[in-house]
Amino acid sequence: MPTNTGSSDVRVVFTPSGKRGHFPIGTPILHAAQALGVDVDSVCGGRGLCGRCQVVHATGNFPKHHINSKSENISSISETEKVYAAKPKKTLLDGRRLSCATQILGDCVIDIPPDSQVHQQIVRKEADAFDIEIIPPVQLHYVEVWEPNMHDPSGDLRRLREALEREWHLTNLRFGPGMLLSLQKELREGDWKVTVAVDYLGQVIAVNPGFKESLCGLAVDVGSTTVAAHLCNLRTGEVLASAGMMNPQIRFGEDLMSRVSYVMMHPDGDAEMTKVIRETINELAENVAAKANRKLDEIVEVTFVGNPIMHHLLLGINPIELGGAPFALATDESVRIRARDLKLNLHTNTRCYVLPCIAGHVGADTAGMILSEAPHKREAITLLVDIGTNAEIVLGNKERLLAASSPTGPAFEGAQITCGQRAAPGAIERVRIDQKTLEPKFKVIGCDLWSDESGFSKQTKKTGITGICERIIKEGRTFSYILHDGEQKIHISQNDVRAIQLAKAALYAGIRLLMERLDIESVDRIRLAGAFGNHIEPKFAMILGLIPDCNLKQVSSAGNAAGTGARIALLNHESRNEIEEVVRHVEKVETAVESNFQQHFVNAMAFPNKIDKFPKLAKEVQLPAENMNGNIYDIDVPAPKRRRRKKANL
Amino acid sequence: MPTNTGSSDVRVVFTPSGKRGHFPIGTPILHAAQALGVDVDSVCGGRGLCGRCQVVHATGNFPKHHINSKSENISSISETEKVYAAKPKKTLLDGRRLSCATQILGDCVIDIPPDSQVHQQIVRKEADAFDIEIIPPVQLHYVEVWEPNMHDPSGDLRRLREALEREWHLTNLRFGPGMLLSLQKELREGDWKVTVAVDYLGQVIAVNPGFKESLCGLAVDVGSTTVAAHLCNLRTGEVLASAGMMNPQIRFGEDLMSRVSYVMMHPDGDAEMTKVIRETINELAENVAAKANRKLDEIVEVTFVGNPIMHHLLLGINPIELGGAPFALATDESVRIRARDLKLNLHTNTRCYVLPCIAGHVGADTAGMILSEAPHKREAITLLVDIGTNAEIVLGNKERLLAASSPTGPAFEGAQITCGQRAAPGAIERVRIDQKTLEPKFKVIGCDLWSDESGFSKQTKKTGITGICERIIKEGRTFSYILHDGEQKIHISQNDVRAIQLAKAALYAGIRLLMERLDIESVDRIRLAGAFGNHIEPKFAMILGLIPDCNLKQVSSAGNAAGTGARIALLNHESRNEIEEVVRHVEKVETAVESNFQQHFVNAMAFPNKIDKFPKLAKEVQLPAENMNGNIYDIDVPAPKRRRRKKANL
Repeated sequence: MPTNTGSSDVRVVFTPSGKRGHFPIGTPILHAAQALGVDVDSVCGGRGLCGRCQVVHATGNFPKHHINSKSENISSISETEKVYAAKPKKTLLDGRRLSCATQILGDCVIDIPPDSQVHQQIVRKEADAFDIEIIPPVQLHYVEVWEPNMHDPSGDLRRLREALEREWHLTNLRFGPGMLLSLQKELREGDWKVTVAVDYLGQVIAVNPGFKESLCGLAVDVGSTTVAAHLCNLRTGEVLASAGMMNPQIRFGEDLMSRVSYVMMHPDGDAEMTKVIRETINELAENVAAKANRKLDEIVEVTFVGNPIMHHLLLGINPIELGGAPFALATDESVRIRARDLKLNLHTNTRCYVLPCIAGHVGADTAGMILSEAPHKREAITLLVDIGTNAEIVLGNKERLLAASSPTGPAFEGAQITCGQRAAPGAIERVRIDQKTLEPKFKVIGCDLWSDESGFSKQTKKTGITGICERIIKEGRTFSYILHDGEQKIHISQNDVRAIQLAKAALYAGIRLLMERLDIESVDRIRLAGAFGNHIEPKFAMILGLIPDCNLKQVSSAGNAAGTGARIALLNHESRNEIEEVVRHVEKVETAVESNFQQHFVNAMAFPNKIDKFPKLAKEVQLPAENMNGNIYDIDVPAPKRRRRKKANL
Repeated sequence: MPTNTGSSDVRVVFTPSGKRGHFPIGTPILHAAQALGVDVDSVCGGRGLCGRCQVVHATGNFPKHHINSKSENISSISETEKVYAAKPKKTLLDGRRLSCATQILGDCVIDIPPDSQVHQQIVRKEADAFDIEIIPPVQLHYVEVWEPNMHDPSGDLRRLREALEREWHLTNLRFGPGMLLSLQKELREGDWKVTVAVDYLGQVIAVNPGFKESLCGLAVDVGSTTVAAHLCNLRTGEVLASAGMMNPQIRFGEDLMSRVSYVMMHPDGDAEMTKVIRETINELAENVAAKANRKLDEIVEVTFVGNPIMHHLLLGINPIELGGAPFALATDESVRIRARDLKLNLHTNTRCYVLPCIAGHVGADTAGMILSEAPHKREAITLLVDIGTNAEIVLGNKERLLAASSPTGPAFEGAQITCGQRAAPGAIERVRIDQKTLEPKFKVIGCDLWSDESGFSKQTKKTGITGICERIIKEGRTFSYILHDGEQKIHISQNDVRAIQLAKAALYAGIRLLMERLDIESVDRIRLAGAFGNHIEPKFAMILGLIPDCNLKQVSSAGNAAGTGARIALLNHESRNEIEEVVRHVEKVETAVESNFQQHFVNAMAFPNKIDKFPKLAKEVQLPAENMNGNIYDIDVPAPKRRRRKKANL
């Protein structure tokens, strides 16, 4: 009763919240904090087992609080604290106290350090990314359950409910029928002491015998090429382990459309692909759990992002409708489903959250990118682009957000290019050609030197070209440019140039279409997601006509934004409502039915982009003259610091 | 807007509800009824497809309603009605109109016949049973869904949601992830017209292409010996088909305790028994569906009753805890679970409702019996007894209800009796012995004659004795009475008498215990459930000391009360709340820990009952003298009309 000021009451102020109240002498600090609604963690319910409720007693005079906080104003180190500190793997840092085992004896100021708060923040290293607030989807509650008693018969479940209500004020919890299968064993194994995992929807996920420290969640990015999984501590947000695997569906078709074609040709093709992707997720889960020394059944929550076809195949929905107009999604809502319904070998009650798809070509991966980049929270007009077989484009700000997909085809990913390959070590990622001699120099992923610099080993493996680019030879009816004539001959054909032209025109047309809708000629920020975004140089991309006018400093790589979005959804359940709300209000633009798209596409075909004005870029670089015939390689500009693809680590 | 009285408005009164209002001329009757909240059924939403909204136009002067209801006051037979009536299997009875296709033209009185109401009543044939109000757990809603459109992309699920809201005002419906797997196909197969089954919790169960007429539910009584299933029309309550099968778990143990012992001895014994009981339910479902010419996936709701061990094994919960003190149930709550989680091959979204257990020996079958018999709705103190290996006893009225289980053992079911067998055709069910000659006469189930009557065929198959009772022979150290010395020798041993003595004493002790708690010496009504209750004669049962004093007219068979309870829970979802509430407040009495039980048991051992007073019975029959030495067979009383076990048909 913090407001009843009895004569024996003393004053307590909690920082950083500033919440304060009066309490009787002898009140445990934890009780006072909980009574005032101070954000302080506890799993064991004040039994000195979990160590989550550690606080710091701030001594000295606090004019702001008008409190004289002296060391004798709280009780001295208790036996409970000594026992706790003596436990293996447990520490009570100098100056820290277990608030459940420390009583208030006089006026005092108590600080709750960040790691003792339930709602922790993850500071993101990226320049202007928003921090992530952790609002765990699943929390642990330790309880002592009354044993069965023949004089007052009641079920084990009822007595567990009663304990959760008595000790944690948790009511109306839902226990899935699966819980019942193991409940008796768990209660008896823990000698009627259990730690119960409850999700934010009031669903009980797990009953762990005895005291349980922490839980894990898994964020999964189901790409059409690779599947990546990150195991996270649900309380701290820490990434405990990450792993990636090739998507085994590749054997059914390299790109998305060939996989849909496979389904069209094979009656059970979708079921086969669903099976293999789920098996891959199981393997990834085993992999990360082993790395982090966790058990699979400690993973109690999973989030997924993926394009619409991956989304459908993961859920077991036939993707055929996405293979042709009108490209109708089965659902554009988020999906909450039990892990075992996806045949995932996690805890029997583990729930999965699949982020919502936006439109037939704009999937849950784009939703993840939006959640990570948060254009809907900014004033600046942001362009988000994720380039794959299709380019997903999101444009707008807090007022209005548009999304579309452009059919760039696989050229940007190196497919359908004579010597093309994906962006991977060994791939040529930069080419510069001397305008007079037509001699090239190039750079390869995995080596910082140009091919004409001393030290660039002849042995550096060059396996192919990624992106766009002396010696011209005739091959049949078309010409090719010989880029490298070593053991492995790498050349660029006229068709290759054409393919890149079509791809960049499609991308640019899509972007122009959205800019037209917003009635803008330039954007404030451009964020390029995915592997392609990590390897592209913004200046050239802009001049070539892949992206629109923007201050070059405001063009940057967003890393694996979709995967980051999956992690945010995993760690902060409120972000799920946020992305659902944003997705509902995103204006979906279907390029295929927009009459202007074709015109934008034709206009955008030229190298370099000659159609649009680049007022922002023009301030930074000298733009090529109209009659440059596409030679843009000598434009001099201090290159922006090379962004290497980092393992996305929050 | 029924309250806005415009100059062109006319008056409408609906019967039997008496609801009335003013409507503009031309308003379809269905709209007026719906606007007034009149209980009138409709599946097709007023499209003239379902025929559920049939009404009768009452003509003439209605002083009560001050309305002159003339034939011209409603529109004449419409084209829609002609088309409907011409359809195969559809009828529009003389005088009936489709309210959706009939307009109000003047003041009128419209009657909603019972079969056009959603909330129908099932009148039960039994003397004082309450009628069953049907409040279907799942209802059908026909909708026309907008087709996907590239100009305004949205998921199939979203457009279906919109249609359900637009046409039926249904919002916040929950679509299980399983729905998504088939949704696209169903919508396209029905050409974007579907009939959606929605349960009372707002969960969508099924999307049926095109127009769908009706749904089924299955009520299952999982007995330890037999499993019975009843397929019901969820709208009318009609039993479409019934079937029963032996419980295959019998091969693991004849009685419950031997099955629990099997589990104790075999690590996967519970899983084996769970598997076979679920397979049996699948077979029964196939059987009743085939009989009724329905498909398995038309079964969208299932209810279960069963004793605690059957309950646990059905759900896949290990029943070992029920095999020993303190006999703790995993749960005493009702369980709602997906049919496919029970491996039932019904619709993928079919839900099962398992009635709550009451205590470790008092199961969901007793809850079903309470729901069917409704002692909690009566003033009269009712005793409900269901005799099996244990006897479940419920005693009380609307003020207070007590429940207990007494360990009668299997003697009443014929087990552990030398020539014993279950109550089935061929079993001897009545014996009368001449006191002087010691010559017996007997009756056999399946034949109305006594063995000494002309016509009683020597060929009537006598397979054993059920229940209790010339010629005495010595067999080893004990004596036996030869009841029948034909091809098959049927005798009753001293041990048999002892077994029945123990059984009846246990039953009576349990009843006395509850009566003691209620501080009563007699009860107002006795209802005997199950097979045993169908074959017993109340007078003898009372004098022998199986049941307490009661007016003989008030002692009757409750038939398969547990199965009826399962059907009530199936047809009226509100009854589920009712039984859950009753079960929560039932006072559970554990005979094993009641110190008085042993004394009651010893007292109840004598034949006949000499301990208790039978003031009510004494008014009807002359009670045996104290020195009668157990001969009670010549008591003369008009025998109550023989109650045959009926196929429980609501």
